[in-house]
Amino acid sequence: MSGHVVALCGGVGGAKLAHGLARVLAGDELTVIVNTGDDFRHLGLWVSPDIDAVVYALAELSDPVRGWGRREESWNFMAALAGLGGESWFQLGDRDLAMHVERTWRLAAGEPLSAVTERIRRRLGIAASILPMSDATVSTRVETDAGWLDFQEYFVHRRCEPAVRGLDYAGAATAGPLPAALAALARSDLRAVVICPSNPFLSIEPILALPALRAALEAVRAPVIAVTPIIGGEAVKGPAAKMLRELGFESSSGAVARRYAGLADVFISDAADPLPPPVPGMRIVRAATLMTGVAEREGLAREVLRQAAAAS
Amino acid sequence: MSGHVVALCGGVGGAKLAHGLARVLAGDELTVIVNTGDDFRHLGLWVSPDIDAVVYALAELSDPVRGWGRREESWNFMAALAGLGGESWFQLGDRDLAMHVERTWRLAAGEPLSAVTERIRRRLGIAASILPMSDATVSTRVETDAGWLDFQEYFVHRRCEPAVRGLDYAGAATAGPLPAALAALARSDLRAVVICPSNPFLSIEPILALPALRAALEAVRAPVIAVTPIIGGEAVKGPAAKMLRELGFESSSGAVARRYAGLADVFISDAADPLPPPVPGMRIVRAATLMTGVAEREGLAREVLRQAAAAS
Repeated sequence: MSGHVVALCGGVGGAKLAHGLARVLAGDELTVIVNTGDDFRHLGLWVSPDIDAVVYALAELSDPVRGWGRREESWNFMAALAGLGGESWFQLGDRDLAMHVERTWRLAAGEPLSAVTERIRRRLGIAASILPMSDATVSTRVETDAGWLDFQEYFVHRRCEPAVRGLDYAGAATAGPLPAALAALARSDLRAVVICPSNPFLSIEPILALPALRAALEAVRAPVIAVTPIIGGEAVKGPAAKMLRELGFESSSGAVARRYAGLADVFISDAADPLPPPVPGMRIVRAATLMTGVAEREGLAREVLRQAAAAS
Repeated sequence: MSGHVVALCGGVGGAKLAHGLARVLAGDELTVIVNTGDDFRHLGLWVSPDIDAVVYALAELSDPVRGWGRREESWNFMAALAGLGGESWFQLGDRDLAMHVERTWRLAAGEPLSAVTERIRRRLGIAASILPMSDATVSTRVETDAGWLDFQEYFVHRRCEPAVRGLDYAGAATAGPLPAALAALARSDLRAVVICPSNPFLSIEPILALPALRAALEAVRAPVIAVTPIIGGEAVKGPAAKMLRELGFESSSGAVARRYAGLADVFISDAADPLPPPVPGMRIVRAATLMTGVAEREGLAREVLRQAAAAS
């Protein structure tokens, strides 16, 4: 079976499944639409953490141990910056910095984020399309018991410690998706849309907050397959479980499934968990979702494609 | 003998004498006014090569072998940038990059170059004052047989290969020096002004092109001591000798002495060269000017101060 696959994802966890999909699909069969709500300016540099995670994963440059950033990384820039009294709460590796510097000056010269990303994708020999969810700026802001916080302030500086009360995706209502994203979703050979195992609040819902993208997703005929980011009631990485609890939901894959009601046709919960309660219009299945290595990424990608075929 | 010393300098060679002066003077006795005509924007970063050379020399962070940049440097940023297809003709070390990133975002936030430099100077524990020649942008441009070139295009990208026909210090006529520079030159305890062994065309004359700074220098009562950047008809480093020849001058320390006529009271030529021909109003002496190590930097600094005392 062939056909095009569109994946929606955020950073590290989602990027792993995107990598698995890229490995089991032909080069031109995958389009990844990436959250940019976490993007921010730091030390004057424009940092797009989720795009970088996807680029590094698909170029097989990710650090396998640290879970973020590039492998074979060094930290001499940060050490020297600390020596100059610069801000050191956000770690920028020497190799990773090349991405931020290259992106920042090209954005300042008027190149859209999508064009910068496309240039880097080609240069790194990545076959799949990688599309930022928008070339317009959308900024995820987090309402907490310590007030409204910019995303990286909440996520990195405060280490997700303040309790979350709500979220806002500033700019999303007027941000247009890329024409290439809408075109990918409208393809007649579309085989599946995959909602990767990313944080629903921080990675997937900012994408869904773009009205034209949400409408295009609701209009696709191909099955939409979502994968749980929660296993055993906890997030594999990041604050998803903590946020579910703080926002008044159960910390479970079932709670994530319910957030995708009306959008996902199939929800893959982890094989180690009991099957979540039914959600109307959604088939809930179980599979191994923990991607400890490349084989598991490929295995989950194949399972997603199997479920899509079964749902078509 | 005590009193304040003001040094004018460019990059590497001048920074060595500034370092020697800093080591033989008391901490608050030295003000270094640094050329900024070479400053340029690269990859969106504001690079001030001469300020960095002086900061690194005075903080004893310079690379002793390479002759520019920081010691214990690594190049992983450049390697990654090349991998992304970025411009790699100007080398930025991982540690050095901290300076450019910190400076760039602070300038963009509205902090003047002098304030950024002062903050870094203090943080690195440098006792001497380091003043950019101006907070306004002055850009050295080089007229060559290949047309007008921006300085770094000529200096780094083209490796000084095009023959020089003329120079322009764009913005100098309207750029104001720092009040602190004028105040240092007006001090009643001013003991000497030192024109460091820097390229006259590229490092010293951009400073002298600022009308208020030139006027202040001409008004000082303290002796002005210039040191040759030319030994044995050749520059210790850089294109000074080549530029002298291309501009129709003899490639000799005497030719540099004549450029400082009416400004310098004493000119120190190298001990290995014959005494240059007389220049009206200038005492020309010989001393060891090659600064191969810290002892030679200190030795030359002491000789400069001796000549100043003798000329007072």
